[in-house]
Amino acid sequence: MDDAKLDIPLSPEKTPVKMRTEEDKKQLVQRLKRVEGQVRGIQKMIDEDRYCVDILVQVSAINAALKKVGFQLLEDHTKGCVTKAVQDGEGDETIEELLKVFQQFTKS
Amino acid sequence: MDDAKLDIPLSPEKTPVKMRTEEDKKQLVQRLKRVEGQVRGIQKMIDEDRYCVDILVQVSAINAALKKVGFQLLEDHTKGCVTKAVQDGEGDETIEELLKVFQQFTKS
Amino acid sequence: MDDAKLDIPLSPEKTPVKMRTEEDKKQLVQRLKRVEGQVRGIQKMIDEDRYCVDILVQVSAINAALKKVGFQLLEDHTKGCVTKAVQDGEGDETIEELLKVFQQFTKS
Amino acid sequence: MDDAKLDIPLSPEKTPVKMRTEEDKKQLVQRLKRVEGQVRGIQKMIDEDRYCVDILVQVSAINAALKKVGFQLLEDHTKGCVTKAVQDGEGDETIEELLKVFQQFTKS
Repeated sequence: MDDAKLDIPLSPEKTPVKMRTEEDKKQLVQRLKRVEGQVRGIQKMIDEDRYCVDILVQVSAINAALKKVGFQLLEDHTKGCVTKAVQDGEGDETIEELLKVFQQFTKS
Repeated sequence: MDDAKLDIPLSPEKTPVKMRTEEDKKQLVQRLKRVEGQVRGIQKMIDEDRYCVDILVQVSAINAALKKVGFQLLEDHTKGCVTKAVQDGEGDETIEELLKVFQQFTKS
Repeated sequence: MDDAKLDIPLSPEKTPVKMRTEEDKKQLVQRLKRVEGQVRGIQKMIDEDRYCVDILVQVSAINAALKKVGFQLLEDHTKGCVTKAVQDGEGDETIEELLKVFQQFTKS
Repeated sequence: MDDAKLDIPLSPEKTPVKMRTEEDKKQLVQRLKRVEGQVRGIQKMIDEDRYCVDILVQVSAINAALKKVGFQLLEDHTKGCVTKAVQDGEGDETIEELLKVFQQFTKS
């Protein structure tokens, strides 16, 4: 898992302020399992010499699906962690981090 | 594998004009296996209540990796199928298809 | 000024919570005047039958410059209006609006 | 007009292979004049302390309008210059240039 540029250091010690419910987690993981299946599907398409454009359409579909997951996470994060930080008077740092993620996201 | 909009019909009967070498296919599949692993990694991060921003950075990294695969396919397609179609005097349709894929790609 | 989709209604009655300083406004307007000049430059390039790729590179440059202006506005908005709304206990609506803008931004 | 990265050197000596008709040029310039007006509109919005989100929506609208112009140019370029180069057996260089422009475009 490299490739991610922009100086956003990992924070393995942090956890989300408002924990996701088991239901939310299940839903996110389900969507990602579907994405995983799509990625495997593309491997098969390459293996079978399928038409390039068909493969490209599926690559776009996966990107779109991942962006949706990303937007869900962004919403949870802003409503949870960012909101909490602002209420505690420590919003600025969290907002700058949020905008960096935004920026990385628009380019990916 | 739905999600892909834009009227680009699948063409299961077509194959790439210039077949990928076994070496090229192996390389593409390897990259996609890595992406698959990254998608599983994100599922685990969600399961472990990891910090939202860390997860988002990984989602961006996957998108970037997939775009790279996409650009590789686009290059092969343009140098192979599109070039062949142009040489055969049937370029216009293939070029329009190429631009549709590209447009879908920029938005995903 | 149409073209903007996504149901984000205009709010002509609202003003930013934290007014931009004259200095900030001057800087933003200066950047936009430069973009305006670039757009005129492209018109001239088309008029002079300049090479398509050269024109396309300039179109990309303008988009990049506009995105920078957009990110500046996003940052001001998040640190100003969103922060204020959260502090007043009215964060949710403002955050949803923020994410809609962001989503529109990633696709443009 | 800086900001444009990616090593795509300007080629001021080149002209499009298939000249645009006066009609096409007029249409492109008209669209760009409209974009120019939109950029001036944003300057005014900043000057009048308009709501940040309203300004951001307009910035997105301009980006979308510019991308449309870009896609038109890409189509002309691919059907004209790229097609000609392929027919002359000199496709590879032109295709690589095309893909670089694509790539720059997706990130802008």
